[in-house]
Amino acid sequence: MRQVCIIGSTGSIGKNALEVISQHPDEFSVYALAVNTSIDLLFEQVVKFKPKLVVVHDEDKKDLFCQKLTKEYSEPIEVYSGAAGLIAAVTHPEVDQVLLALMGAQGLVPLVKAIEAKKHIALANKEPLVMAGELIHDLVREHGVHLIPVDSEHSGVFQCIQDRSRNEISSIYLTASGGPFLNRDEETFSEITPEEAVKHPKWSMGQKISVDSATLMNKGLEVIEANSLFQFNFDQIHVLIHPEAVVHALSEFVDGSQLAQIAATDMKLPIQFALSYPKRIPMKGLSLNLSDVKQLNFMKPDMGKFPCLRLAYEAGEKGGTFPCVLNAANEVCVDQFLKNKILFTQIPVVIEAVLKQHEGVKKPNLEEVLTADGWARKIAAQLIYEMKSNNICSKTA
Amino acid sequence: MRQVCIIGSTGSIGKNALEVISQHPDEFSVYALAVNTSIDLLFEQVVKFKPKLVVVHDEDKKDLFCQKLTKEYSEPIEVYSGAAGLIAAVTHPEVDQVLLALMGAQGLVPLVKAIEAKKHIALANKEPLVMAGELIHDLVREHGVHLIPVDSEHSGVFQCIQDRSRNEISSIYLTASGGPFLNRDEETFSEITPEEAVKHPKWSMGQKISVDSATLMNKGLEVIEANSLFQFNFDQIHVLIHPEAVVHALSEFVDGSQLAQIAATDMKLPIQFALSYPKRIPMKGLSLNLSDVKQLNFMKPDMGKFPCLRLAYEAGEKGGTFPCVLNAANEVCVDQFLKNKILFTQIPVVIEAVLKQHEGVKKPNLEEVLTADGWARKIAAQLIYEMKSNNICSKTA
Repeated sequence: MRQVCIIGSTGSIGKNALEVISQHPDEFSVYALAVNTSIDLLFEQVVKFKPKLVVVHDEDKKDLFCQKLTKEYSEPIEVYSGAAGLIAAVTHPEVDQVLLALMGAQGLVPLVKAIEAKKHIALANKEPLVMAGELIHDLVREHGVHLIPVDSEHSGVFQCIQDRSRNEISSIYLTASGGPFLNRDEETFSEITPEEAVKHPKWSMGQKISVDSATLMNKGLEVIEANSLFQFNFDQIHVLIHPEAVVHALSEFVDGSQLAQIAATDMKLPIQFALSYPKRIPMKGLSLNLSDVKQLNFMKPDMGKFPCLRLAYEAGEKGGTFPCVLNAANEVCVDQFLKNKILFTQIPVVIEAVLKQHEGVKKPNLEEVLTADGWARKIAAQLIYEMKSNNICSKTA
Repeated sequence: MRQVCIIGSTGSIGKNALEVISQHPDEFSVYALAVNTSIDLLFEQVVKFKPKLVVVHDEDKKDLFCQKLTKEYSEPIEVYSGAAGLIAAVTHPEVDQVLLALMGAQGLVPLVKAIEAKKHIALANKEPLVMAGELIHDLVREHGVHLIPVDSEHSGVFQCIQDRSRNEISSIYLTASGGPFLNRDEETFSEITPEEAVKHPKWSMGQKISVDSATLMNKGLEVIEANSLFQFNFDQIHVLIHPEAVVHALSEFVDGSQLAQIAATDMKLPIQFALSYPKRIPMKGLSLNLSDVKQLNFMKPDMGKFPCLRLAYEAGEKGGTFPCVLNAANEVCVDQFLKNKILFTQIPVVIEAVLKQHEGVKKPNLEEVLTADGWARKIAAQLIYEMKSNNICSKTA
C-alpha cells in the first residue's frame, strides 16, 4: 500500500488523482493533501479519504478550515499552512510518493525537498524541470528515486522508451494538438482575446496552461522538460502537430523503427501510470479502438506563426538559467495577457526581449535559479510597463 | 560475429537479408545459403558472400550448379540438395542463426530441426506456426532459443511487447493494408482475375502471399501465427485495416494505454531486427516523419466481404489440426485460382467445406500435423474437381 501525498488536490490533476486512488483502495492510501485556498472541496476530500495531514497554503483560509474541522470532523488530522507546511507534507516520513500538481514556479522548492527526502515523485508541474532541469536530474540520481512525469506527452515518451537501451534510441517526438489557433490566420493574432485563448480544443485545463497551449509555449516548455527528464539533446526532440491528440509521443530507434504511445485524452491514465510505476494496473473505460478515431493527422509545427516554440528551443539550447528566464517571463506575460494588459502577439516579443538582456549562469544552484526567476519577472514587468507607457499596447490601454 | 544460414536466399526476404548483412560485415557472416532452383542468382551470392555450404533443393539444378562451381569458383564449399540438404544446413554446428524464408508448409520440418539443434530463428515463413503452433512453441521453450518473427506485423507486436510483463497487456492489434480489393464492390468479386489479385498496393511480394493479402487470408494466418508466437487468446488478437501500412502493430495495456510500432514499409527493418536481436543496430535511410505521411486511416475489417479472415479465426479457436487444414486447403485453392481453375470467391467456399469435413486432432505431434496437411490438400483438390465437374466454376471451365 503506497502512502500518497497530493500537492494541489483540488486542481484538475489532483481531482483526477483522487479518482484513480478511489478506484484502487488496495494500492494507494492518501496520507496528505495540500491546497492553496479551496477549503470547501478540501473538506469533502478529507471526509472521503481521511488523510493524516493537510496543508492550506493561505493562512486565513487555514484558520477557517480548522474551525470547520473542529465542528464537523472527528478523525485525527494535522493542519499546516504556507511554504513550510508544503515541505512538512512532502517530506513526512510516512509518505512514499508525492504527486506534485502545482502551477508554475512554486513547485520547485517542494520538489527539491521531496527528492531529498527520498520520495518517489509523480510530477505534473513542468516548470521546476524547466527552471532547474540539471539540478533536479542530479538530485534524482543521487537519491535513487523515481521521477515519473504526469504530462501526457512525457508519460508517453517514458512508456515508449521504458526498459529500452538508451543508445538504441535516436530521437523522440512530442505531439501537440496545435491549440485553438492552429488554423487561424496569423494576421488576426493581435486580436486574440483571453476568452478565445483559454478555449482548448482537446484538454480542459487551467487558464495559464491553456494560453501556453495557444502560443505553443506549452510545447516549448515540454521540449525543455523532455531534455531534462530524458537527457536527449534538443536536436533529438521533435514536435509534431497532431490535432486528434490520441498519439501523445513517439520514440525513434537507430534502425528507423518507431514506437508511439496512444491513449484516450484522459489525464487519469498518465496519473495512474505515474502513481503505480513500475507496476501497470488496470483502468476501466479508457480502451480506444483506432477504427473509432478513424483518422490521425500529423504536420510540422510552424515556428514563424508560433514564435514561443522557437524561443523555447533557443533557451533550451543555451541552457543554464535561460530556460528559467523563459519560463518566468512567460508567466508574467500570460498573466498580463489574461488581464487584458498586453496583446497575444506581445507575449513572445516580451519574452524574447527579456532573454536578450539575460546573462546566463551555467549549472546554476537552487539560489541562482531563484535569483534568475525573480530577475526575469522584474524585467518582464518593466518591459510591459514601458510598452504600455509608449502606447504600444493600444488595444487595451 | 553471427554465422547466419539463409533458407530461401534468392526470394525477396533472402535478398533483403543479404543486403542487411552486407551493411553489417562486423555483425554477421553468411555460413549457408539454400535455394529451390535459382542457381544463377545463387552463384552471384556465393561469389559475394563466400558461404561454406549451399543447398540447391532441386537435384538436377544442383548438378548444374556444381559444374559451374568447378569451372568458375575456387573457394572451399559444400553443396547439398533435397530435404536432407536443408536439414544439414540448418543444423550445421557452425551456424548460430537460421533465417527461414521458404513459402508455405515446406518450412515446417527444417524449422523443427533447426530449433532442436538450438539455432536462433528469424522466421519469415508463417505457415509452420499456423500448422504446428503449439508444437513449435513448446520446442522453443525446451531448447531455449529465440524465435523472432520477420513478418512486419509480428515484428511490430514483438517490439511493442518486448520486455513488458505479459499480464500488463490486454490485447494486440495487427494492421492490414486491406489489399487491392478493400474498396472494390463485393458484387464483382467473382470476376477478379489472378493478375488483379497479385497487384498488392503496398508490398511487393510473391504471388501466393499477394493473393492471400487480397482475400485477407494472409491476415487470418497472421492472427493464428500471433496466437502461436505470443500466446494471446484469439479474442485478444484484433485486426485493424490501415491502408497507409506504416503502423504495423499495436499492443494495448490493462490501463488502456497503447504502443504502436511504426516504420517505413521496408522488409529490411524487421529482417535486421530479427537477425540482430536482442541488440538493435543502426539502419540508414528508413527514418520516417509522420508529418510526411500526413494522414493515417484505420477501420474495422469486413469479415462478410472477406470470409477468409473469419475462417482463420474459427480454425484458430478450434485449434489442434484445424489451422493446419485451413492453411493446406488455402494453398491448394490459391494455386488453383492462380491457374484460373477456380474463382476468387470460391477460395473461401472450398476452405470452409474442407474445414467442415475435418475431425481435428488435439495437441498433434509432427506426424499428425503432416497427415492433416496431406488430408486437407487431397480433400480440397477433390472438392475443386467435383465443383468443376458440376460446372460451378463456369467462368474458366
